[in-house]
Amino acid sequence: MKIDVLSLFPDMFSGVFGQSILKKAQEKSAVQFQVLDFREFSSNKHRNVDDYPYGGGAGMVLTPQPLFDAVETLTKETSEKPRIILLCPQGERFSQKKAEELSKEKHLIFLCGHYEGYDERIREYLVTDEISIGDYVLTGGELGAMVVIDAVTRLLPGVLGKEESHLQDSFSTGLLEHPQYTRPADFRGMKVPDVLMSGNHKNIEEWRKKESLKRTYERRPDLLESIELTKEEENWLREIKDNKTT
Amino acid sequence: MKIDVLSLFPDMFSGVFGQSILKKAQEKSAVQFQVLDFREFSSNKHRNVDDYPYGGGAGMVLTPQPLFDAVETLTKETSEKPRIILLCPQGERFSQKKAEELSKEKHLIFLCGHYEGYDERIREYLVTDEISIGDYVLTGGELGAMVVIDAVTRLLPGVLGKEESHLQDSFSTGLLEHPQYTRPADFRGMKVPDVLMSGNHKNIEEWRKKESLKRTYERRPDLLESIELTKEEENWLREIKDNKTT
Repeated sequence: MKIDVLSLFPDMFSGVFGQSILKKAQEKSAVQFQVLDFREFSSNKHRNVDDYPYGGGAGMVLTPQPLFDAVETLTKETSEKPRIILLCPQGERFSQKKAEELSKEKHLIFLCGHYEGYDERIREYLVTDEISIGDYVLTGGELGAMVVIDAVTRLLPGVLGKEESHLQDSFSTGLLEHPQYTRPADFRGMKVPDVLMSGNHKNIEEWRKKESLKRTYERRPDLLESIELTKEEENWLREIKDNKTT
Repeated sequence: MKIDVLSLFPDMFSGVFGQSILKKAQEKSAVQFQVLDFREFSSNKHRNVDDYPYGGGAGMVLTPQPLFDAVETLTKETSEKPRIILLCPQGERFSQKKAEELSKEKHLIFLCGHYEGYDERIREYLVTDEISIGDYVLTGGELGAMVVIDAVTRLLPGVLGKEESHLQDSFSTGLLEHPQYTRPADFRGMKVPDVLMSGNHKNIEEWRKKESLKRTYERRPDLLESIELTKEEENWLREIKDNKTT
């Protein structure tokens, strides 16, 4: 996969792209990153990339020309149309499903604004996907782009080793993960539950499933609406609810 | 504000902390960042930080000792208890409200795991807040910590200039922002709506409000449930809905 990022702060990406999984993914040639300063594509003699909004108001707005020209340059030699992704608060909420969808593409281009708004023609005629990583205000689109790139890259074939891929498995049930414990069994008087030391695998399995249900019920009851529980799990859930209310 | 980050990949933070608003916030002494590798706090002679889970299963689990000792060192000289924040999928969903809450603290400590699970005793006895930035799988807690730190830091007094603070204003109505346009009025045949060039401020204001409502209705109808609309806005919203269905 080829991933291009257009940003006014390209140096923001060096730490994240140069470490851990994203670094390994490049070394394995699973992905090729390029970060470009789209100011370089401004045809304006002062290299301006933004201007005042038509109709008045506060804030600056990114002009279409530099981003259109940058994308044109990046796609000149490709026959397939890439996904062109705008990070913005108005976008579709990012999800694991969206990460999986994007991981099947050959070429992604990320547009990252910074403080400024985007001229509507960028959204309407250039961009294929508008994404928001959550309902909070960030300084720019860069962190959003890094989040999406990390989530997508780790799904590419051959990128994750066996150990690293565990994290993903823990979401496969649709429930939050049960508590985990490791050595020491007694840390400053804080102890590991007996059942985990019992060696009884059936009991351990049951304890984990119940804890997973309990945690999901307590913290993210919305997740329970979209999964099908077994008869046994439904009984446990009833128990958990009863214990809560008594 | 003092912000400490405990991570096994401290170099991931250099690009983001060294640019833009986070850089300026440090120069203005509004915030002081420190990123530490918690492997340094391991009392194990191999500097191990994780171990196999009790009860069996895939994946590794972070042991309590290095994180407990690291936090103890960081808080030795402070009388006030800091907020100790764990980034994890099981956490409370991060929101602008949470960012505002955290921005009132004096000291935040972020714990970032990487692939591994966390020993439950870390959650139970060390951490004050568990946060998730969204329902997607990331390689580690580092990007989540950067997101929270960016959202919090830009709220600190004196950090944002007038221009940069606009982005926040755009959320103040509870609606998504209306489309923005800047020069040129005609970009490759794509034109700015006439109303914005009319100079009629009343009409511009009305157009913007309607577009803001329309965009929110189309993209994030959930936001409409939590705000009170004026009579006029309710009428517009009815018009928008009618146009959709006919």
